[in-house]
Amino acid sequence: MTEILYDILGIGNAIVDVVAATDDPFLSRHDMHKGSMTLIDAAQADLLYAAMPPAKESSGGSAANTCAVAAGLGSRVAYIGKVADDQLGTVFRHDITAVGVNFHTPPLVGGAPTARCLILVTPDGQRTMNTFLGACVSLDASDVQPALVAQAAVTYLEGYLFDPPAAQAAFYKAADAAHAAGRQVALSLSDAFCVNRHRDAFRKLVHGHVDVLFANEAEITALYETNTFDEAAELARKDVALAALTRSEAGSLVLRGGETVPVPAQPTKVVDTTGAGDAYAAGFLAGLTQGKSLAECGRIASVAAAEIISHYGARPEADLRALVGG
Amino acid sequence: MTEILYDILGIGNAIVDVVAATDDPFLSRHDMHKGSMTLIDAAQADLLYAAMPPAKESSGGSAANTCAVAAGLGSRVAYIGKVADDQLGTVFRHDITAVGVNFHTPPLVGGAPTARCLILVTPDGQRTMNTFLGACVSLDASDVQPALVAQAAVTYLEGYLFDPPAAQAAFYKAADAAHAAGRQVALSLSDAFCVNRHRDAFRKLVHGHVDVLFANEAEITALYETNTFDEAAELARKDVALAALTRSEAGSLVLRGGETVPVPAQPTKVVDTTGAGDAYAAGFLAGLTQGKSLAECGRIASVAAAEIISHYGARPEADLRALVGG
Repeated sequence: MTEILYDILGIGNAIVDVVAATDDPFLSRHDMHKGSMTLIDAAQADLLYAAMPPAKESSGGSAANTCAVAAGLGSRVAYIGKVADDQLGTVFRHDITAVGVNFHTPPLVGGAPTARCLILVTPDGQRTMNTFLGACVSLDASDVQPALVAQAAVTYLEGYLFDPPAAQAAFYKAADAAHAAGRQVALSLSDAFCVNRHRDAFRKLVHGHVDVLFANEAEITALYETNTFDEAAELARKDVALAALTRSEAGSLVLRGGETVPVPAQPTKVVDTTGAGDAYAAGFLAGLTQGKSLAECGRIASVAAAEIISHYGARPEADLRALVGG
Repeated sequence: MTEILYDILGIGNAIVDVVAATDDPFLSRHDMHKGSMTLIDAAQADLLYAAMPPAKESSGGSAANTCAVAAGLGSRVAYIGKVADDQLGTVFRHDITAVGVNFHTPPLVGGAPTARCLILVTPDGQRTMNTFLGACVSLDASDVQPALVAQAAVTYLEGYLFDPPAAQAAFYKAADAAHAAGRQVALSLSDAFCVNRHRDAFRKLVHGHVDVLFANEAEITALYETNTFDEAAELARKDVALAALTRSEAGSLVLRGGETVPVPAQPTKVVDTTGAGDAYAAGFLAGLTQGKSLAECGRIASVAAAEIISHYGARPEADLRALVGG
């Protein structure tokens, strides 16, 4: 049997974030749904960037953020994602490598540029994201090595990967390889609009191919098309072995079979919610792969999320191990 | 006579900052002089970047920072500097344009990449900079249009521009054009090591070609090779019409002929001193071009500097006009 070399293998869209502070009227003028992620093409990205205030660039991408946070918590982590051989690709590769994540997916040469996400942060700390997928759309099944998947206790997939067309095949290849090796598969639903775009595909993947499901309230009710969170939670309980459902400042609910574990949110000053869900998943999986109780997994998840939303940007700035403690 | 369309025209190295939090042992291991700026080549930049922690990218460049801060204070501002036609060049152009600075220097095509400055910020808030000049070395006298210089009340030159060889000719062309049009020339000495590298050239420029001189204590004593700040200050008083000499938390001293105006520093939490001197010069020149008293120029300068050092990065994040008040 293959040795486990990684606690977590993340697969996702490799994206550089372009973060600017703005106000609500800017979102209205540009017809943006506050708090959501919208896909834009190269021309739209140029237009929006030209209209944006000065920004700071930092590495992002949902699953990549999760990998960076998990590495900061001491997990052994690998990542699969597609950048281009350009300056932003170099930045992405540097940052994820510098935190100790194993990242060897070859860059796209001579194609679209590295993906970027134009993020508008409003004074309430909410982030509204506009993603130009660029090189990410070339991620396909050939980028997933079953041998690497077999070396990871959990393979973690971000729901945003349903958007680039070739990535769904990569998803199934990774999930099948994980289960064939006796490993687990985790999925984050990522965004309610993304769930609405790909509901049938998500339901098909979740049912039978996913062991651990992460979602917030909007995403889980979008997946199951229910009116209430409680209804959606009960459907998730039946669908997957383990579900961690987040509700912002109301904390989260962890469900495993008949077990229900409520987890309080960690109090913090909200500066920028970008990456909150990514950090939550990182903390939870870091705990899970260390054999912690569900309550402790939820606590670590909440501490990690609180650190991320206390500053601009989706990657940790503090010593997460110290924050989590004992 | 040409109409004044700009309060300030900045000329400098157009640089993207790559900012990472680090510790003192990292500086020691890499033989860095804390608080200084060192020039590195492309290979050194690659090696250092590989050793650096995760970073955030934002637009920088000393005179460009000054321009951005002055624009934030309501000044009319233009900028001359050289980026490449690459992703970091696009970032630089976006950010300085987004704050309202007129920037039309054509990019370098097919040559070195956009300059970057690898900045290590230690827990005491000090920044240690390593600059790969890249496309900046191609800035030359042809990039300086005398008609543009004549449209600016003050042409502001950064001392770092003494490093790329062709830029000194650009300096003299700009200074001559400014004086021919009856305008003023301001210079920042930028860095004591830079002054040591080019002391004779600096002295020659300062004496007779500069009306307003900005320097900190280390820079002004390096320029005049004196043991004490007071000796250097007296030499500066005789050399230039107006000198603003900064001493970190001890405030600054403004000298004009026989006049001496001490200016207190604004109290603030020091996070990252990158850009403190740039912001001081911006505030001072914004006041000067609005006809304010020297004391008021110094106060605006200190308020601007305090805002910049209260967060990571050299560009303003708060509403500077509101901070300055009145």
